[in-house]
Amino acid sequence: MAETSEGVPAIDRLAIVGLGLIGSSIARAARRYGLARTIVAVDRDEAVRARVRDLGIADVVTGDPAEGAAGTDLAILCVPVGAIGAAAAEMAPYLKPGAIVSDVGSVKGAVVAAVRPHLPDGVALVPGHPIAGTEFSGPDAGFATLFQGRWCILTPPESTDPAAIETVRALWAGMGADVETMSAEHHDHVLAITSHLPHLIAYNIVGTAADLESATQSEVIKFSASGFRDFTRIAASDPTMWRDIFLNNRDAVLEMLGRFNEDLSALAKAVRWGDGDALHAMFTRTRAIRRSIVAQGQETAAPDFGRPRPPEE
Amino acid sequence: MAETSEGVPAIDRLAIVGLGLIGSSIARAARRYGLARTIVAVDRDEAVRARVRDLGIADVVTGDPAEGAAGTDLAILCVPVGAIGAAAAEMAPYLKPGAIVSDVGSVKGAVVAAVRPHLPDGVALVPGHPIAGTEFSGPDAGFATLFQGRWCILTPPESTDPAAIETVRALWAGMGADVETMSAEHHDHVLAITSHLPHLIAYNIVGTAADLESATQSEVIKFSASGFRDFTRIAASDPTMWRDIFLNNRDAVLEMLGRFNEDLSALAKAVRWGDGDALHAMFTRTRAIRRSIVAQGQETAAPDFGRPRPPEE
Repeated sequence: MAETSEGVPAIDRLAIVGLGLIGSSIARAARRYGLARTIVAVDRDEAVRARVRDLGIADVVTGDPAEGAAGTDLAILCVPVGAIGAAAAEMAPYLKPGAIVSDVGSVKGAVVAAVRPHLPDGVALVPGHPIAGTEFSGPDAGFATLFQGRWCILTPPESTDPAAIETVRALWAGMGADVETMSAEHHDHVLAITSHLPHLIAYNIVGTAADLESATQSEVIKFSASGFRDFTRIAASDPTMWRDIFLNNRDAVLEMLGRFNEDLSALAKAVRWGDGDALHAMFTRTRAIRRSIVAQGQETAAPDFGRPRPPEE
Repeated sequence: MAETSEGVPAIDRLAIVGLGLIGSSIARAARRYGLARTIVAVDRDEAVRARVRDLGIADVVTGDPAEGAAGTDLAILCVPVGAIGAAAAEMAPYLKPGAIVSDVGSVKGAVVAAVRPHLPDGVALVPGHPIAGTEFSGPDAGFATLFQGRWCILTPPESTDPAAIETVRALWAGMGADVETMSAEHHDHVLAITSHLPHLIAYNIVGTAADLESATQSEVIKFSASGFRDFTRIAASDPTMWRDIFLNNRDAVLEMLGRFNEDLSALAKAVRWGDGDALHAMFTRTRAIRRSIVAQGQETAAPDFGRPRPPEE
């Protein structure tokens, strides 16, 4: 579905706004898989534009929202969640009828609320969220295969033109993603537990460790391989992106945090009272979830995450 | 130091009690690097003994503590923390003067307290803790290079014979580990934050997710790549081992949990009140710890932990 029957790219002009890890990966993938005739990179940061030009991953590079919007069939806003509304407002007056606006934000309800009022009649909104990434940022961090075998969730409002949804779906499928559609509210609820709460907790424990006496802190770093290290990777994610996520998915995050805290109190009580049976039962049932994740191909069963290890006999 | 000047293994008879991931890795490494003349595998589980015989990773395989102890120069107890005292008690009457008892438990204060009263005069105690492992268990999970470039912490009581400490140090160095010595109390304090609390939290969030409505739970598994997955790996660790760790390092774990909870309350408040500056500041400072860990070689800088990703151009 990514190309017409004549092999011509389905999207004539694709504008990518914000050339960070995700935006630059879309630019690379769209070109590699022939998904757009013209790729327009729009970024307000002059240093990023210079880097995008050097990398040669877009046909047009501009800092001007009007130039980015002109003639665009699909504009994907790849800026932090808190900046998506403003980015949409800047481009909206210049979008042609029939254009589609999408995004890659990790929160969807707040994005719909921020973007929708700015869009003129005849411009469709198809919000998206690829479940893919690394803890690195910027145009150099992207790569064309980032979305291969990863999920991309679309949350189009109910009245959205099915043809617009199909255009966005086909783009993500063309980049190798598995596409799922759901409501923005449901997305935000699910991601609160799968992504936002884990990040909040990882940031928190790394912060707790940073506050320890300095002697202990240096040992935390030294002996991090015992579990702490996995949290630091998550807690190394982009601060601005994550600030915006928590500000924009507050209610769902606080609800999940409330559940987490109730469970943690019960677990702490079992530790304090030496209730070994309760601890063992809790630790056993969590293994089943791990097995389901490996079985569904979202992870390998390799020890240590496939982290490099010395060669075996 | 692992061999005498004549190239003869420094340890004549090495008994490994408990042939799980760690014990079987020691057996493999001691043989590969020529660190012991005779390797004795002691395990109460007949199925494990049969597997160890099939794998051929020990010279003697027995379920009898007396046979395991007889003539042994160094006995390393590789059973869960809660079983170390009993394992020591069973072997102690049969240990020769000059023998050394060690272990690999993740808690050290409780191990010293459980083991020391059983040891006859002339038998030294040199507790150890290799910071290495995977989330897999059993004799098949081990490999000879598990300890390469990893830390091993020794916590000998103050009065311990330096020659005994040196024998254990040389064994770990011979298996490729970097060896550090500290008090048992300090070890338990540091590991509470680097290892025990991260595991408690990982178990907890995976448990919270398991309690969600079943529809959401299946989506948690589906979209786990967004952060949750990293917690499930930690929460897939051996339940018996971890039950024993929490029962035996209760005070240090509860202290660190208290600090964690204070910080989490502050973070939750920032989310609730929309304090973006506080969130951004918190998320920025955690990046520095990550950089220190990568700089110290306890982790690679590769995105996604070096998890396999499709080939790049």
